[in-house]
Amino acid sequence: MFKANDNFAILPESYLFSEVARKIREFREANPDKELIRMDIGDVSLPLPAVVVDAMRDAATQMGESAGFHGYGPEQGYEFLRSLIAEHDYVRRGIECIGADDVFVSDGAKSDLGNFTDLFGKNVRIAVAEPGYPVYVDANVLAGRGGQEQSGRWSNFTYIECPASAGFRPSLPNDRADVIYLCYPNNPTGVALTRDELKKWVDFALANNSLIIFDSAYEAYITDSDVPRSIYEIEGAEKVAVEIRSFSKTAGFTGVRCGYTVVPRTLRFTFDSGEPADLNKMWRRRQSTKFNGVGYVVQCAAASLYTPEGKAAVKTHVDYYMRNARLLREALVEKGWEVVGGVNSPYVWFRPTVKEGNPGSWELFQKILDTANLSSTPGVGFGACGEGWLRFTGFNTAEKTLEATRRIKELTL
Amino acid sequence: MFKANDNFAILPESYLFSEVARKIREFREANPDKELIRMDIGDVSLPLPAVVVDAMRDAATQMGESAGFHGYGPEQGYEFLRSLIAEHDYVRRGIECIGADDVFVSDGAKSDLGNFTDLFGKNVRIAVAEPGYPVYVDANVLAGRGGQEQSGRWSNFTYIECPASAGFRPSLPNDRADVIYLCYPNNPTGVALTRDELKKWVDFALANNSLIIFDSAYEAYITDSDVPRSIYEIEGAEKVAVEIRSFSKTAGFTGVRCGYTVVPRTLRFTFDSGEPADLNKMWRRRQSTKFNGVGYVVQCAAASLYTPEGKAAVKTHVDYYMRNARLLREALVEKGWEVVGGVNSPYVWFRPTVKEGNPGSWELFQKILDTANLSSTPGVGFGACGEGWLRFTGFNTAEKTLEATRRIKELTL
Repeated sequence: MFKANDNFAILPESYLFSEVARKIREFREANPDKELIRMDIGDVSLPLPAVVVDAMRDAATQMGESAGFHGYGPEQGYEFLRSLIAEHDYVRRGIECIGADDVFVSDGAKSDLGNFTDLFGKNVRIAVAEPGYPVYVDANVLAGRGGQEQSGRWSNFTYIECPASAGFRPSLPNDRADVIYLCYPNNPTGVALTRDELKKWVDFALANNSLIIFDSAYEAYITDSDVPRSIYEIEGAEKVAVEIRSFSKTAGFTGVRCGYTVVPRTLRFTFDSGEPADLNKMWRRRQSTKFNGVGYVVQCAAASLYTPEGKAAVKTHVDYYMRNARLLREALVEKGWEVVGGVNSPYVWFRPTVKEGNPGSWELFQKILDTANLSSTPGVGFGACGEGWLRFTGFNTAEKTLEATRRIKELTL
Repeated sequence: MFKANDNFAILPESYLFSEVARKIREFREANPDKELIRMDIGDVSLPLPAVVVDAMRDAATQMGESAGFHGYGPEQGYEFLRSLIAEHDYVRRGIECIGADDVFVSDGAKSDLGNFTDLFGKNVRIAVAEPGYPVYVDANVLAGRGGQEQSGRWSNFTYIECPASAGFRPSLPNDRADVIYLCYPNNPTGVALTRDELKKWVDFALANNSLIIFDSAYEAYITDSDVPRSIYEIEGAEKVAVEIRSFSKTAGFTGVRCGYTVVPRTLRFTFDSGEPADLNKMWRRRQSTKFNGVGYVVQCAAASLYTPEGKAAVKTHVDYYMRNARLLREALVEKGWEVVGGVNSPYVWFRPTVKEGNPGSWELFQKILDTANLSSTPGVGFGACGEGWLRFTGFNTAEKTLEATRRIKELTL
């Protein structure tokens, strides 16, 4: 008799972003005449750069000709794209330990974050920063690593609390942490770690044989020189860390679907037996067995981002969203509210000051939605440490962001 | 301390198709002047149809304009594509129980075949037909369902032997079979099941609460009227079967990456607790957590296949490869060799007659490669039942296939 994976039964049904979407839908149905501005979205608003459109159109044309047709590609991604990534995103930035064979092209960071859990042993203990992106937790719960859930926490996980009192910065765990998920610049708080701060984590992983999954989807937003753009800028990281990136937020690829994961051949881990486990080889095997690579047209689109025009387009996109984030940050600071992020990050994380009471994130979300017709993402959805806080993003258009700042100024809670 | 998933250590390293590719590479290096014809490939040779190229180019152009830009899409796929699939591939063929909400668009059959194992309980017993596509086995071994391996078989699997003596047709298992992988028209043998034959499997699954994973990647190649094109033509299948399809072999999408999986809302299974398990909802949750949908341009490309031009193009492609398969079949039959497939299927499965001895598949593979400079896929790579057999495919060009038939005629082993 077939039995379904029990872990689906214990994972709470509502996924944060679906719940937000549902409440927005309800608001719209009840208020068809109000102009809602979505400041919750992690999706971008600028269309694809011309250089990308041209690359996709050209590649599509090639695919219609015998000479230019590309069928199954390598599961790991075409060498032309992996080389560009290794060269431009690593070697030219002084990270010479990363080569094309360490790079795996994928259909996006979420797929890789989820699927990489296939490589973990059954009894590894997962450490997640809180607040954090729900996928780290959910993917591991589905794989049976959660244990029991109580008040939004799982008994078998180690929580790296990042409380408001610490400026939402993470402290090294006291508990066991075999796999450590880190996301910097952080989603949702916008906090970025300095070189010294990140070094503590790499040193911890080296000392404890921990694997770091470094979600680096927002590295393009880093401007401060003491904030590393890759974890491999830290010595030894190539022995303990996997780095996951995406073209979604750098060039508007949310609807194109392309990212990459770096799994260095220098990673040093073992199987239960003590035999060496080569994670690069394992990930290659996983992808060869359960994935068939990213389409040629999409990989050509990604490659176009490494041309001078592509780089200029990325800069334009990033500057645009960063300006939005800065405007939001300034409007919130001006109100005297507590604000984090909006620097080195497209996310602004804030706690409204209210006249009375101590409202939670969802209550604040609803109030701002009803009063200012602005949507946000409730901070508690990213973990208990986020209670009372909300996330705005810089990804809407400049016009709507400007209007949002006007509404913020007039808002009283 | 991080420990890696032990199942990667026990899975034999060489993946059938990589091994074939390696041997072909070696042959080419040693024989740079010989014109090798690849008859092993599962990859297509015709370029994309014009209607698909136009759809991709138009969609790329849209993505470069604010009004036409599409960011994150629904993880399950756009409604416009899911509706076309449900309407054209099911409802209009008399299968009214399948609707757009049962359809999940994906980046291909291999991803879905692999990832769907996330939904299985820990102790389900996997039944695989032999010979069969290695992904069914490998994905479940990586998930810890294999047990011990001996001579290419796993102790915890139920093998559905399809021996030459039975014309490579499957018999119902005597052993437990919680999840049954069926692929018809079959890869590698080309065998297709009639309505009566398939009905036995659906009835078995209904009687035993088994889940059937029906790999239907080659349904477009069916011409016989008593061979069902979908498992849902069989009464009750909507309660026990998931159907996985691909646009790879119908319209040359191997390098585009798009397919779909039907997970009917009518499926009837339970968790260990006995609570009902809604696989449609579970798959939606799995995909929402670990996948971010297929790109817009790719989904527009797939949608173009449901226009009159698209349908005509699919017919042209299928007819082309079927003619190749028929020619190969005829050439092999003419030699007096045992031949299966090549009808209702792009695969031709054969056993060469040799002057002396009883050579295995790999030995025959090498001999045909060295003598006729034709590559094939060794049947034993699909399981012990395939020993002594080889697979040719109809996916090369008509010209090369014709030349291959000439070489076959001259071949003496």
